[in-house]
Amino acid sequence: MTNYKEITAEILAIGDELLYGQIIDTNSHWISQELDKIGVRVVRRTTVGDNRDSMMAAFEDAEKRADIILMTGGLGPTNDDLTKPLLAEYFNCSIELVPEALEAVRTFFEKRGRELTELNRLQAHLPTKCTYVPNEVGTAPGMWFEENGKVWMSMPGVPHEMKKLMNDFVIPKIKSLYPLPIIYHKVIKTVGIGESWLADVIKDWEKNLPEHIKLAYLPSLGQVRLRLTAFGDDYDELQADVETVIDQVKPLIDKYIYGYNHESLEESIGRLLKQANKKVALAESCSGGYISHLITSIPGSSKYFQGTLVPYHNQFKNEILDVEAEILKKHGAVSEETIIQMAENIRTMFGADYGLASSGIAGPDGGWKEKPVGTVWIACAYEGKTVSKKLQLTHDRMLNIQLTAVAALNLLRLCILGKTE
Amino acid sequence: MTNYKEITAEILAIGDELLYGQIIDTNSHWISQELDKIGVRVVRRTTVGDNRDSMMAAFEDAEKRADIILMTGGLGPTNDDLTKPLLAEYFNCSIELVPEALEAVRTFFEKRGRELTELNRLQAHLPTKCTYVPNEVGTAPGMWFEENGKVWMSMPGVPHEMKKLMNDFVIPKIKSLYPLPIIYHKVIKTVGIGESWLADVIKDWEKNLPEHIKLAYLPSLGQVRLRLTAFGDDYDELQADVETVIDQVKPLIDKYIYGYNHESLEESIGRLLKQANKKVALAESCSGGYISHLITSIPGSSKYFQGTLVPYHNQFKNEILDVEAEILKKHGAVSEETIIQMAENIRTMFGADYGLASSGIAGPDGGWKEKPVGTVWIACAYEGKTVSKKLQLTHDRMLNIQLTAVAALNLLRLCILGKTE
Repeated sequence: MTNYKEITAEILAIGDELLYGQIIDTNSHWISQELDKIGVRVVRRTTVGDNRDSMMAAFEDAEKRADIILMTGGLGPTNDDLTKPLLAEYFNCSIELVPEALEAVRTFFEKRGRELTELNRLQAHLPTKCTYVPNEVGTAPGMWFEENGKVWMSMPGVPHEMKKLMNDFVIPKIKSLYPLPIIYHKVIKTVGIGESWLADVIKDWEKNLPEHIKLAYLPSLGQVRLRLTAFGDDYDELQADVETVIDQVKPLIDKYIYGYNHESLEESIGRLLKQANKKVALAESCSGGYISHLITSIPGSSKYFQGTLVPYHNQFKNEILDVEAEILKKHGAVSEETIIQMAENIRTMFGADYGLASSGIAGPDGGWKEKPVGTVWIACAYEGKTVSKKLQLTHDRMLNIQLTAVAALNLLRLCILGKTE
Repeated sequence: MTNYKEITAEILAIGDELLYGQIIDTNSHWISQELDKIGVRVVRRTTVGDNRDSMMAAFEDAEKRADIILMTGGLGPTNDDLTKPLLAEYFNCSIELVPEALEAVRTFFEKRGRELTELNRLQAHLPTKCTYVPNEVGTAPGMWFEENGKVWMSMPGVPHEMKKLMNDFVIPKIKSLYPLPIIYHKVIKTVGIGESWLADVIKDWEKNLPEHIKLAYLPSLGQVRLRLTAFGDDYDELQADVETVIDQVKPLIDKYIYGYNHESLEESIGRLLKQANKKVALAESCSGGYISHLITSIPGSSKYFQGTLVPYHNQFKNEILDVEAEILKKHGAVSEETIIQMAENIRTMFGADYGLASSGIAGPDGGWKEKPVGTVWIACAYEGKTVSKKLQLTHDRMLNIQLTAVAALNLLRLCILGKTE
């Protein structure tokens, strides 16, 4: 596949606050995505504290492994920030004032009507071996090194400052320095089938994937994403190759595929409802409003979402939602009889095309032998038909709420598509 | 304060999906926090892909640096998951069936009324040198090793599975194995005041904190947590010292403190409602069910939560919730007049003591000059009184939904406490 040498990168995040869990490191994740897009292979991500030995060791380790070392953090004006002095020590050079950098910091503060402090002035002193990279949205400049046959970039840990340096300087610079392979990603999003069952169903297809296309399983709550990654020389060819293998696997798992790439389950349902010009209403008991939240988190959902009732007690299921007292008395709130009436009545109440309902025992308490914690009924009522389903979930309340939502949204999806059988 | 040898840990996250930026690694951050709490020093965090050489190298590196190596990921039943075989290779042992583990996986699937696949069966085969650690909420077991004078724990990458293994097994086990320094943490949880205002109000108190007590500001959406950490040799002394400084700061920010440590805003509201033996009902428009979700995510919420109506269109605000058509026509859905009727009518509809309502323009579209995106009204109606409040939030839909929920829950809290003035 590759008449290039693969270009590798290591991402180095620096700061005690990361190791102590005071701040979550979103920078390394974002940088990973950006490098992945241009075909640079991230081989490792490392986080170290503001400590000389760990940082020097991390520099050495990274240099052994990668062509490109991108680091964030440790650039503040205070003493616990060591990146600059240690890079100077590592590359064996001195730190001197860069007039251009001083000018930039001064302007930065003037714009904000503030005085330049001695600490800020120090930020304009840089290792002599680095190329000064202006930071237009902050006071800590970027530092670019080309040493020991590798390239190094040091950036501030403040996300929007790091992102601007990456977009304006680092990414274009890397593209200009290296012949990069073409990479094409596509993610198939499935719901309603577990990872191991899915793997079973598609194992022959997986075995026969072409050499230059790799498959990864990315499971999450009630869902599994299949990520296809193709490596080669021609973007259009790779795209075509990936579409070909997707066409091969589709018939095997058609019912479970709800979308591709970044489309969420609730987005795909919004798309389907808009296309069909249909509207939905919800009666949520055990899911307590979570399904409505997912649906209404999508911009434009008011076009297809009518409303929701959460009747958390039998009294309200009867008085407000009109579920027959007899049914509730005889079969209980967590029963097929009740869920069917909930779905049908909410559909009428809001004049919707689809009525979606949930009722179950979320836990941790409240279960009994016949109906243990995790017993959930869901139903979807639409033109002349009501489909109901029983779920046996976990003992974890939040998990049960989330899994109920995924199952209910998937039931709605299958009803819209007429694929419930 | 330290007559102990410092105990160090390295956190190892495994998976191509992390390096490619397909999934953000929240596990390492969470593990960092938990280890910090018990006085274990995290010296490095490393992320590697599903690749033999990188993983073996990471094992070696980690063993050189840390006493404890905690790893997540690479445990799926599929072929791209290498953690188990490589740990067996690294510790030079074979992989054999663990009947107890097979039993656990079988039960896991029986509970869900599903068949065991060959792939699942494989998950019950473990390296002979590891201690099998049952995973009650998933199919990939935990593996604990004590080898080469270090302890190693391998956990699944699925966050809720990893967290359960950490809480139930790893943390207690580490505490039992090592002499750890005494650390006492207490977190003061505040809502309704921004970080910089808070810092200003308590700056003198902060300046006078004793040497051995450290303060950290942990801001999150609409809330700020103040974490006090005391270091020493006697747990009871540290606890007493921390309580003393808390007693000093309380009067300054009493109105904003809703709880301590892990109590969430919705939990504290549940506590208050149970104490007062009162019940709440919600009418959510712009928040779309999110407030109900937060309230019902708390075990036992059925004791004080009656139900919710989400009337997403004026028609339903009028027909189902009885908001006067005149009011809606004259003032619109996002107005003080409407929100007051929503709060009072939902209280009546569900026979609740408190009626809580939200109505606003979540965005990104739908705003205009007089009512730009982010304009939100909230109100709380109770015995003989209705308190309403206007919020001017952001242009981000999800952010507006979340900030509306925090503000509404805080309004409810203040109404229950009679602190609305």
